[in-house]
Amino acid sequence: MTDAPAVPPPAGDLVAIVPAGGAGTRLWPLSRRSRPKFLLDLLGSGRTLLQATADRLLPLTGAAGLYVVTGLAHAEAVAGQLPGLPSANLLAEPSPRDSMAAIALAAAVVEHREGPRVVASFAADHVIPDGEAFRATVRTAMTAAEAGYVTTIGITATGPSTAFGYIERGEGLTEAPGAFAVARFVEKPDAETAAGYLATGRYSWNAGMFVVRTDVLLGHLDRLQPPLAAGVREIAAAWDSPDRTAVLDRVWPTLTRIAIDHAIAEPVAAEGGVAVVPGTFGWDDVGDVDALAGLLEANDDGVVVLRTVSETDDDAESPGSESPVVAVDSPGAFVVPGTGAPAVAVVGLPGVAVVRTPDALLVLSREAAQDVKTVVDRLRAAGREELL
Amino acid sequence: MTDAPAVPPPAGDLVAIVPAGGAGTRLWPLSRRSRPKFLLDLLGSGRTLLQATADRLLPLTGAAGLYVVTGLAHAEAVAGQLPGLPSANLLAEPSPRDSMAAIALAAAVVEHREGPRVVASFAADHVIPDGEAFRATVRTAMTAAEAGYVTTIGITATGPSTAFGYIERGEGLTEAPGAFAVARFVEKPDAETAAGYLATGRYSWNAGMFVVRTDVLLGHLDRLQPPLAAGVREIAAAWDSPDRTAVLDRVWPTLTRIAIDHAIAEPVAAEGGVAVVPGTFGWDDVGDVDALAGLLEANDDGVVVLRTVSETDDDAESPGSESPVVAVDSPGAFVVPGTGAPAVAVVGLPGVAVVRTPDALLVLSREAAQDVKTVVDRLRAAGREELL
Repeated sequence: MTDAPAVPPPAGDLVAIVPAGGAGTRLWPLSRRSRPKFLLDLLGSGRTLLQATADRLLPLTGAAGLYVVTGLAHAEAVAGQLPGLPSANLLAEPSPRDSMAAIALAAAVVEHREGPRVVASFAADHVIPDGEAFRATVRTAMTAAEAGYVTTIGITATGPSTAFGYIERGEGLTEAPGAFAVARFVEKPDAETAAGYLATGRYSWNAGMFVVRTDVLLGHLDRLQPPLAAGVREIAAAWDSPDRTAVLDRVWPTLTRIAIDHAIAEPVAAEGGVAVVPGTFGWDDVGDVDALAGLLEANDDGVVVLRTVSETDDDAESPGSESPVVAVDSPGAFVVPGTGAPAVAVVGLPGVAVVRTPDALLVLSREAAQDVKTVVDRLRAAGREELL
Repeated sequence: MTDAPAVPPPAGDLVAIVPAGGAGTRLWPLSRRSRPKFLLDLLGSGRTLLQATADRLLPLTGAAGLYVVTGLAHAEAVAGQLPGLPSANLLAEPSPRDSMAAIALAAAVVEHREGPRVVASFAADHVIPDGEAFRATVRTAMTAAEAGYVTTIGITATGPSTAFGYIERGEGLTEAPGAFAVARFVEKPDAETAAGYLATGRYSWNAGMFVVRTDVLLGHLDRLQPPLAAGVREIAAAWDSPDRTAVLDRVWPTLTRIAIDHAIAEPVAAEGGVAVVPGTFGWDDVGDVDALAGLLEANDDGVVVLRTVSETDDDAESPGSESPVVAVDSPGAFVVPGTGAPAVAVVGLPGVAVVRTPDALLVLSREAAQDVKTVVDRLRAAGREELL
């Protein structure tokens, strides 16, 4: 992409765009439509996934460089969890139009306000324990982005997972040391195919992270999705004016629903315009209860107990009310006892997960964690909207 | 036992003694010290196990012929559940002294009041769906009891259970058609031994049911456990007098702690004085959660759901509050959702049991149902008396 115009951004400066959406159905009953995954302190760390995401990005962006795009229903909760976020940087979508619209709108608003900038998009609900290693990788990706590439970060696979898409890398890029051309993106493979990918040494997991100049991103969008590009540019031009609501109400519902992967990443990769920087930091999308349990430490009985899953400190149990958790012959069990101090006993069930909330109780085999979706589907079919 | 004096009781007349004790630890958390198994409507039938036991016996005994022996702590609850029970027939033990003291005291009180009678002792917490078949067997046993035998009822085994003791029968008794001499009683065997027993055709399960004349029972006790016999006779003589409390307080704590099996059944069987009548009615002692689940009917998903486990109708859920139970890939699952209308979902766990009460949640493999005792032991060791 050496033909792209060079726009040197302020050194070391990044604008981060965090799309905060998705209910996390596979984490039911912890996550709900009204309590999506990113608003929860799933690891019992004292910070929600959204807050931890902001903590991780702020050294790169400063408070002024952090943007969050979320649904109207969650805007207040996001503002409450991120009191340092400038209100102008919280972009509320009237309705979900998929990731391309969300990210492109934020990129267009940033560019309209500040001119072309390097922006980076990271999900609000992923777990990355080593922030320093993450930021070092992002800095490498910023160099590739400045050189004109749509740059993604490839997560070093720890196994032949079938839960993620993969990125195949090609040649190293001379203009961005540490970055490689992306040969192609592939969808979630079966286990055998995944093992074959890993054997080549060229594949990494696709975590949906993108670092790119706003002018590069919007330029690609102009070519590949002209109506969508025109729509977000029109909304962005009106965003900081009295016309915002009127334009948003008129244009937003017309925007093409498409993921950034299909709109930009895949077609631009085919043109040679996407770069990948391998990231060796630990990463998890906490895709289901089994993944969540794997991120936590087992106690002396070999059981993982997660005491607190709260949106705020107010939800936390009082210290005196800790409920006993007794596990007999159940190695690998995972228990979320919930509030209210009931005793929880697990007997003869290795790898069981027990997740208790005030209105629901889930008991599952960790191996079947993905099938929680079936439970949610059945509750929806039964009209139990209050449980979704 | 043709040398025993013949005391013809009123035709078809029986006094039933129901010892109501035992917490049913293996049914935790449904049963507790303060909510023992016999006080619970475990089958969701609308009658507690104690009430069902009384219902089953009353056609043989009439209200005046039913006696219940229970601990002081449960006397009020028993009286409340059996409003037709004459207050004189509710015998409260100051402290547990095992089954021989309880049954012998009741037998002595009956004999002191009415002279020698045929009495029968049946546990308060067993399940026998076919009352008519049960009573026909008891009537056969009454004939053997009238003839002077300590008569037990042998339950036809439905498999080589290791959870019960066994009764080996010998020759048929000419003086009591349908009854057999007992060759011996044996303790709970291992599975191989149990299978060998069943192969002979001579063994049945020992359900601890005894039918015997009071004078025969107390006569054996005079010989075999003289201090215990003297003690219960002394208490019985004072029972309907102002001295009851004083005598009870003085004598009761001195009584030998021994089970009727060891005090009477085994030694008298060795003398040829015990008869057995095979009972072909269905029977279950509901010894654990797996047994309880087996007594209930599965729904269309192959899951057993027990909605109501209450002591009284007041505990029952209101009809509108029924909580959804969703089971995915979990045939043979058993769910007691408890009150409060939470949703319960079970995923990928065949044969799991989920038992929810207001203060405890038990999740276990039905195969490991007996290991619930370990949970109770651990809670006791942790000082959580309120959960026992």
